[in-house]
Amino acid sequence: MENPCIICVAITGSLPTKANNPAVPVTVAEQVESTQEAFEAGATICHAHVRNDDETPSADPEKFARLKEGLEEHCPGMVIQFSTGGRSGAGKARGGMLSLAPDMASLSVGSNNFPTRVYENPPELVDWLASEMLEYGVKPEVEAFDLSHILKAADMHKKGQIKDTPYVQFVMGVKNAMPVDREVFDFYIKTVKRLFGEDAAWCAAGIGAQQVVLNEWAISSGGHART
Amino acid sequence: MENPCIICVAITGSLPTKANNPAVPVTVAEQVESTQEAFEAGATICHAHVRNDDETPSADPEKFARLKEGLEEHCPGMVIQFSTGGRSGAGKARGGMLSLAPDMASLSVGSNNFPTRVYENPPELVDWLASEMLEYGVKPEVEAFDLSHILKAADMHKKGQIKDTPYVQFVMGVKNAMPVDREVFDFYIKTVKRLFGEDAAWCAAGIGAQQVVLNEWAISSGGHART
Ligand SMILES: [Zn+2]
Ligand SMILES: [Zn+2]
Ligand SMILES: [Zn+2]
Ligand SMILES: [Zn+2]
Repeated sequence: MENPCIICVAITGSLPTKANNPAVPVTVAEQVESTQEAFEAGATICHAHVRNDDETPSADPEKFARLKEGLEEHCPGMVIQFSTGGRSGAGKARGGMLSLAPDMASLSVGSNNFPTRVYENPPELVDWLASEMLEYGVKPEVEAFDLSHILKAADMHKKGQIKDTPYVQFVMGVKNAMPVDREVFDFYIKTVKRLFGEDAAWCAAGIGAQQVVLNEWAISSGGHART
Repeated sequence: MENPCIICVAITGSLPTKANNPAVPVTVAEQVESTQEAFEAGATICHAHVRNDDETPSADPEKFARLKEGLEEHCPGMVIQFSTGGRSGAGKARGGMLSLAPDMASLSVGSNNFPTRVYENPPELVDWLASEMLEYGVKPEVEAFDLSHILKAADMHKKGQIKDTPYVQFVMGVKNAMPVDREVFDFYIKTVKRLFGEDAAWCAAGIGAQQVVLNEWAISSGGHART
């Protein structure tokens, strides 16, 4: 295939617990095992969060280090993407693991509402996370929770804050942020092509029940899919 | 004219001081005088902030009350729109003047970044401001700093949180929020028509040097303009 479909497996996430779903991998050992299954089934990117022992979200660099080590051993060649999302910590703690130089890391470039709160990504923190990624050669995946985040990625690229063509993930279906909407989805693609070129890669993630819808839209429109 | 162009004059704003521009009206008396000039020149809506004596932004209901009284006397028939924007106060203090029942009030329905900080509009506050506007018969002007805010307005209308067809203002040119972008502007209009009907009114505001550009785009595209 000229443009093979990239499957990005999101293990664990930041919220679900064993109480919600006993199959959720929580310890690093469980995460490595679960990712290996997905890797053998064809997933090529692993989007990873880590957890504390009580299953709450964590940004502990030590845990991320062990996860990276396990994945490198059991999933050779798999692209490792660390989450710097706001549920795992506050401020610079969210980027403490970037010095481990994973292949990729998620990068929120703006703020927006979440179901019950503000998802805060102040400009100063965004700039710092991007500079850490530059320093350690980590490719950002820009999380677009809204349209302006795609334009902000273009601006950051122009200013040298993002080195290569930005790789954007459209996130849809989060309550109080962007809902799952086909016309918006198509305009997102149009905007990515306009700003980053016809061949720019992008991916999409739907939250909860919307995951399958977004996967279908993404794959049939030339994007990459996230589980 | 079948669809006369509405000119909305934004007196004072929340930031500029006399040091920036000696002509900025700061006291209520100055504001009334300045608005009367705009009213006589054809402005039909007054978008109003109030200030403390030291020129810092205020949300003091007492000041808003005096402003409303002055405008009713000197600009009879002018539509009065109070700002509930976040620079004037925090939390519910932003809506303390809604019980004065102005014709309209601005309503932010999501969060986004501003030049140096997060513009925080937590879901709970958005719901409360909307409920106050319902209670006192105040028509909201939804401030769309990003695309999802238009879709959120549609959702709020569907749920009865906004009574009439939402009236949306596109805000462009705020650093770290949505830049001035013609393709996005056109998609905003398309989205308003899709969600609220072909005849739905909307307006646009450009920040700083971009004000004139946005006025031109708005007027030539059937929208209302804000100074
Ligand atoms: Zn994640
Ligand atoms: Zn992805
Ligand atoms: Zn204002
Ligand atoms: Zn307006």
